[in-house]
Amino acid sequence: MVERETVFDKILSGEIPCHRVYENDHVFAFLDIGPLSRGHILVIPKERKAFLHELSDASAAAVGRALPRLCRAMMKATGATAYNVLQNNGSDAHQVVMHVHFHIIPKVGENGLGIGWRPTSLPADDAAVLLEALHDALAKES
Amino acid sequence: MVERETVFDKILSGEIPCHRVYENDHVFAFLDIGPLSRGHILVIPKERKAFLHELSDASAAAVGRALPRLCRAMMKATGATAYNVLQNNGSDAHQVVMHVHFHIIPKVGENGLGIGWRPTSLPADDAAVLLEALHDALAKES
Repeated sequence: MVERETVFDKILSGEIPCHRVYENDHVFAFLDIGPLSRGHILVIPKERKAFLHELSDASAAAVGRALPRLCRAMMKATGATAYNVLQNNGSDAHQVVMHVHFHIIPKVGENGLGIGWRPTSLPADDAAVLLEALHDALAKES
Repeated sequence: MVERETVFDKILSGEIPCHRVYENDHVFAFLDIGPLSRGHILVIPKERKAFLHELSDASAAAVGRALPRLCRAMMKATGATAYNVLQNNGSDAHQVVMHVHFHIIPKVGENGLGIGWRPTSLPADDAAVLLEALHDALAKES
């Protein structure tokens, strides 16, 4: 699948300016210009992929490694002690820019990410069905 | 800081049973028993740390690398095409178990994670202040 260019490619190329926080060979981070709270950071792979499930091992590991460093920096810079990390995939899941991005969102009082949590149950028979399908899928991963 | 044991340590040791999805040297994944939607998976580092900002490079990279694989498996197992990845830090940010965990939450119709999004603005002068503090903090990282 050919990935379509997004505004993040223009930020990566410098065509569109941004408030750059961090950069290495695989990862780029910048301030969200519509922050949910002060210090809201976007962390993206340089690899042009729309969804997390499409990301290469190298990009995914590099983004994973960068996240704690960026969270520490955000805490020092803002004084926030609580935060959420959110990564959305698909319009139905609130994704707007179709290039993988992790949000680091400080939570300070009411400022930050709002979370709606309506847990259900996990019947044992369905857990068994799910696990078999998950194990089959994972066995096919290299 | 000595990390306190949580229920996830008992799951890792096998003292408490779980629906195990995946495991490698650094990472463990299992079905959430209070799923927001069918196929809701928890992905944790074996390293006992409460918060993402405390995680070692090796654990963080390993969790990052595992996430796309687990997302692909979840999609195959459930048929879901949209999903959210959420990682909470601190009681104020909706964290309940004080051991780092990433939620992979399929979004199917109304089932899944509810997201409250109230964007603010980023004044240029405050962006400059934030960036200076972030760059200072990141310069002190090894």
